[in-house]
Amino acid sequence: MDCPDWVGDLVDFTRAYDDDDARMRLAITLARDNVVHETGGPFGAAIFQARTGVLVGVGVNRVVPLHNSVLHAEVVAIMMAEARVGSYSLGEPTAHELFTSCEPCSMCLGAAFWSGVRRIVWGATRDDAFQLSFDEGPVFPESYAYLRKRGMSFRAGLLRDEARAVFELYQGGGGEIYNG
Amino acid sequence: MDCPDWVGDLVDFTRAYDDDDARMRLAITLARDNVVHETGGPFGAAIFQARTGVLVGVGVNRVVPLHNSVLHAEVVAIMMAEARVGSYSLGEPTAHELFTSCEPCSMCLGAAFWSGVRRIVWGATRDDAFQLSFDEGPVFPESYAYLRKRGMSFRAGLLRDEARAVFELYQGGGGEIYNG
Repeated sequence: MDCPDWVGDLVDFTRAYDDDDARMRLAITLARDNVVHETGGPFGAAIFQARTGVLVGVGVNRVVPLHNSVLHAEVVAIMMAEARVGSYSLGEPTAHELFTSCEPCSMCLGAAFWSGVRRIVWGATRDDAFQLSFDEGPVFPESYAYLRKRGMSFRAGLLRDEARAVFELYQGGGGEIYNG
Repeated sequence: MDCPDWVGDLVDFTRAYDDDDARMRLAITLARDNVVHETGGPFGAAIFQARTGVLVGVGVNRVVPLHNSVLHAEVVAIMMAEARVGSYSLGEPTAHELFTSCEPCSMCLGAAFWSGVRRIVWGATRDDAFQLSFDEGPVFPESYAYLRKRGMSFRAGLLRDEARAVFELYQGGGGEIYNG
């Protein structure tokens, strides 16, 4: 799909990731390696079957290299997961979860909702992204309340320090901040 | 890109669309033809250079046929426009506008923000979509206030009756409502 070539060497779609920490660590590794390889912004995401932990899709930010503002890590992961599953729904019959190195922006939160994933877990927070000068768009406490009412759940700040360290790596390397 | 083949016969990227009505009518025509050809949901979108009215990108909803929940009309139009312009920004150096047959859902409002389009004009409203049982996601009056502060502007309900008629056509044909 839209992932750079090195992603194929990193990920293993045959293995299961047993717990939240292991799943988040993959998302953060994708983010860090995307900075190291200079293939996009400091963001990574991965989608798993909720119950088994089997990996279904991954994504990294590809906005600048592919001239495409839609290609945030979460969107890339959702599109790959749906292509691999062969369905526009990651909610039924198998419940999936999205792990992302940073709290989703307004577009990605909406994309996750439409994808049907039942749970989102993130590392760095909206405030961390703003400190890096990335705008996260119109997401409010009511946004999460709206989605909770529709059956989604959220876990914030898992391995936050490791996720933030990727932002520092990006900033230290002079990475492009590409808000319009 | 992700548009069905008939779109190539309909659109003309060499002509200018002089005013809001002409630009909206193209978005609604795309929505209607997408229902008639049974190539996706009842939504269409088009992106123009704001000053000249030159058409830069178009999109129709492709969720069900392409098994991809991200491919709303607005997202397809944004990706096509950025590919044609060769940039992840539709804000500078040339200001662009997004015309869409229905008020953008939360994902598409975020996608429009990230694309840099300066203005969004829509036909049918969020309430009209809800009546068709399409959930539009967490968009609030504060969402628009947030985006206005960052320089975006909005026009709601242009040719709303014509846009709503496409929903009725879709509903009458037994079109799939694909909320997760």
